[in-house]
Amino acid sequence: MIISEETKSATADRQLFIKMVVSNWELQNQRLNGLIDKLSDDQMLQPVAAEKNRAIYLLGHLIAVNDGMIPLLGLGERLFPELETPFVKNPDDVAIHTASVAELRASWIKLNNALTVYFNGMDPSDWFTKHSGISEENFAKEPHRNKLNILINRTNHQAYHLGQLIFLKS
Amino acid sequence: MIISEETKSATADRQLFIKMVVSNWELQNQRLNGLIDKLSDDQMLQPVAAEKNRAIYLLGHLIAVNDGMIPLLGLGERLFPELETPFVKNPDDVAIHTASVAELRASWIKLNNALTVYFNGMDPSDWFTKHSGISEENFAKEPHRNKLNILINRTNHQAYHLGQLIFLKS
Repeated sequence: MIISEETKSATADRQLFIKMVVSNWELQNQRLNGLIDKLSDDQMLQPVAAEKNRAIYLLGHLIAVNDGMIPLLGLGERLFPELETPFVKNPDDVAIHTASVAELRASWIKLNNALTVYFNGMDPSDWFTKHSGISEENFAKEPHRNKLNILINRTNHQAYHLGQLIFLKS
Repeated sequence: MIISEETKSATADRQLFIKMVVSNWELQNQRLNGLIDKLSDDQMLQPVAAEKNRAIYLLGHLIAVNDGMIPLLGLGERLFPELETPFVKNPDDVAIHTASVAELRASWIKLNNALTVYFNGMDPSDWFTKHSGISEENFAKEPHRNKLNILINRTNHQAYHLGQLIFLKS
């Protein structure tokens, strides 16, 4: 197959754009990792502010939501489907003990390693295709709602909760 | 000038990327607007949590930081340079009264209207050029650190503080 210079240039543009989005996701991960590494397991069981979610809940929530990108981007199955009910479908509840802080810390690392492998294996053009949460009809009208857009959205979501978790930093 | 089909296609790709980033910025603005419209001026003078920043400080901070995009993207001069010192260079201080809540609400709207006009007037290719905060040398090595990347970064920054401001929602 002969690849024209123009096609190479279009691929380079897409790779650059993917790099922008993925590097911002990585930056948010670095910040969150830096924070939770500093928080003790006891601190992770505290609410981030009076009457607000506990840090353990926010970490479980971020794992469950980001894990949901795997099927949404057509990459495979969730690693931790059991976290969806306690950490997304339901509010924080100290009476429900589904996972320890240590388990969630390990799951967070495992998930990010898996997502990195998945993202690195994606063809640049695949990022600009339809994700499984939008209909063919709507995607035809709004092609910006593609897979890469999901990662932009989830990065913002993570920044939102990082702004809350940071309140536990002493 | 004759524009080839390939050039048109590259421009369409870039327009799609820009749409993705700008629409996520607009989404964060909508969420922040929806929240601060619901908060009274009295609530805006409250800290978002015990011993944390007041909402007025966070709003001033977001205005000052986002206003900084205007010179950073080579679009012109800041609209509110006087907010840099009290809301970025210094921490929240109830003793310093530089702007009323009403003034900041108006400045926020004025800034977003101005940014929208600026963004709409930018040529798609301009978003992928160097911003004024990076050297030619570093940009040559890291071309993903372009103007559009600034908007991705500032959108995450805004989401981070929205996650804090939401604590005042009753």
